Amino acid sequence: MTDVRIAMTGFGNVGQGVAELLRDYGEEYRRRYGVRLLLTGVADRGGAAIDSTGLDPQSLLSAKRHGTVAEAPVGERDLRGDAFLERARAQVLVEAASTNFQDAEPGWGYIQGAMHRNMDLVIASKGALVLHWSDLMASARQAGLRVYFSGTVGSPLPTLELADRVLLGTRIDRIEGIVNGTANEVLAAMAEGASYEEGVQRAQESGMAETDPTLDVDGWDAAAKAVIIGNALLGGNLTLSDVRREGIRGVTVQQMLEARSRGQAIKLIATIEREKSTVTARVAPESRPLADPLGSLRGSEMGVVIHAHPLGVMTASARGGERAIPTSLTVLRDVFNLCRDRGWSS
Amino acid sequence: MTDVRIAMTGFGNVGQGVAELLRDYGEEYRRRYGVRLLLTGVADRGGAAIDSTGLDPQSLLSAKRHGTVAEAPVGERDLRGDAFLERARAQVLVEAASTNFQDAEPGWGYIQGAMHRNMDLVIASKGALVLHWSDLMASARQAGLRVYFSGTVGSPLPTLELADRVLLGTRIDRIEGIVNGTANEVLAAMAEGASYEEGVQRAQESGMAETDPTLDVDGWDAAAKAVIIGNALLGGNLTLSDVRREGIRGVTVQQMLEARSRGQAIKLIATIEREKSTVTARVAPESRPLADPLGSLRGSEMGVVIHAHPLGVMTASARGGERAIPTSLTVLRDVFNLCRDRGWSS
Repeated sequence: MTDVRIAMTGFGNVGQGVAELLRDYGEEYRRRYGVRLLLTGVADRGGAAIDSTGLDPQSLLSAKRHGTVAEAPVGERDLRGDAFLERARAQVLVEAASTNFQDAEPGWGYIQGAMHRNMDLVIASKGALVLHWSDLMASARQAGLRVYFSGTVGSPLPTLELADRVLLGTRIDRIEGIVNGTANEVLAAMAEGASYEEGVQRAQESGMAETDPTLDVDGWDAAAKAVIIGNALLGGNLTLSDVRREGIRGVTVQQMLEARSRGQAIKLIATIEREKSTVTARVAPESRPLADPLGSLRGSEMGVVIHAHPLGVMTASARGGERAIPTSLTVLRDVFNLCRDRGWSS
Repeated sequence: MTDVRIAMTGFGNVGQGVAELLRDYGEEYRRRYGVRLLLTGVADRGGAAIDSTGLDPQSLLSAKRHGTVAEAPVGERDLRGDAFLERARAQVLVEAASTNFQDAEPGWGYIQGAMHRNMDLVIASKGALVLHWSDLMASARQAGLRVYFSGTVGSPLPTLELADRVLLGTRIDRIEGIVNGTANEVLAAMAEGASYEEGVQRAQESGMAETDPTLDVDGWDAAAKAVIIGNALLGGNLTLSDVRREGIRGVTVQQMLEARSRGQAIKLIATIEREKSTVTARVAPESRPLADPLGSLRGSEMGVVIHAHPLGVMTASARGGERAIPTSLTVLRDVFNLCRDRGWSS
């Protein structure tokens, strides 16, 4: 049994989901994977909680009900940044703070601090990957650190793992995906006759959409995922502004119904492709036949279609439970893969 | 650059496909994965070819046109079995002889001989896995050898990799799959109005079906895949006789058309599930809605649906090119994964 010491930054839906999973399945994970995952530090906007013997997940969740993990018995207000990483003494950083495409903070600062401390990275927040891809990957390579980020490209889709473990010996030419659950859910509601506004409201009520759904409905979130996929899997050097981006605000109920009458569905689709040696990405609403692998997805189902030469076409889709659990499980699968790739797990 | 020495037993569609891929993409594989795959020995029914510096793939393919690799310049009639393995001096056995569910020979003999010589295993032939699962896995574990067999469960589906790398932290409760391309293609032809006999003939003409399609249309092939999936992913201890098996001979055009008029399709589906601690498997024609992930697959498309707690449902499907290439690529992806897991590749 190996102890794996984890510092986690961010304790929103994803972080709390990780804590719930460790609370509910920690014992089973120890038995199955031969590793004990210890949260030795968790930071959020209000401060941090630290315990080098491993924080109790439930006490973090209880403290969060009062606004911040700093309210936990071992919590400290104003503990953050480098001081937090120093005190957490972890091997792994799980970066799960909310995404920010302006300066990628606080995530990028934590990631740099963690690399400086020789910590491997499990990244669930897109900002740093989108804004600092080359820097981040070069620094990690140079330091011999491992970087996992399955949670950033439309979790729980297995896009990265398909490329890494399944499509070996092939050349990936094109990837199309429905990678934003909120836009998908809004469009699904509209396909049933709801207006755009009602669709957004329903997605908010289901806990899928944020109070400000801009990042989702205007395609920023899908565009960020396209950047990461294009850079990671097609060797691109994309930034957010390289993505031709059109959101779903302009989609009308009339268009949805017309598509339906033709046996089609309108979906927000991200397309990343290589033509000669140029990698391009776009995000736009597209009409797809209901029999198409992406057109057939319903509600908040996500999907990805990968064209790989000379194999053909491989498709994956996922239908998850509550919002947080699929992404939290994706963070944990990255942690377990890290443990195996490092030789920590049995 | 690391040389990886491979002995391959069987040089039918799959083996020849591997040779074609190495001929066409060998240089690219060296560049991308940092390993040089050398076929140091290839055996078929007529004998073997051996070259410790690496056989030329094209010369093997040319020799095979005369019936056996033994016709190659470095070929030897009657070289087989232990003498072949001894002479091939390889690190890896790729076992791709035709499947046999009576005694699993010659595959099982080669696999045992390879383990005795400390060789890792990439298995593309189902016989030994179905008949000798426990023995094989226990021996490999004891000897510290690695065993890969993605090509045996419906290639190129990523079923094993999804379980191994993506569904970590979940408990797989049920797996449903369309894992036999021939049955699928026969049923697709019948859905368009062809009789069963015409469907079989078309599948034979397309190169998908064997001259004797019994293993495919009577569900033996799908049942064998269900045994391997059940044992590998659900911890079962199944044998072929444990699978409730019904093939597609009894399916009538009338039933196909009726299903279609209800918006459904009849597919040969393998289901493996755990109830309490018992793992069961069955193979049978089932009627599925066209909007269902398996019901929507067409022609020879394969698919798998995995129910995993607490994640939800993950689906994967694949549409390949010619018959041999998807399975040959699956063999190679196992080889590349082996190379990485062993630390041979960069």
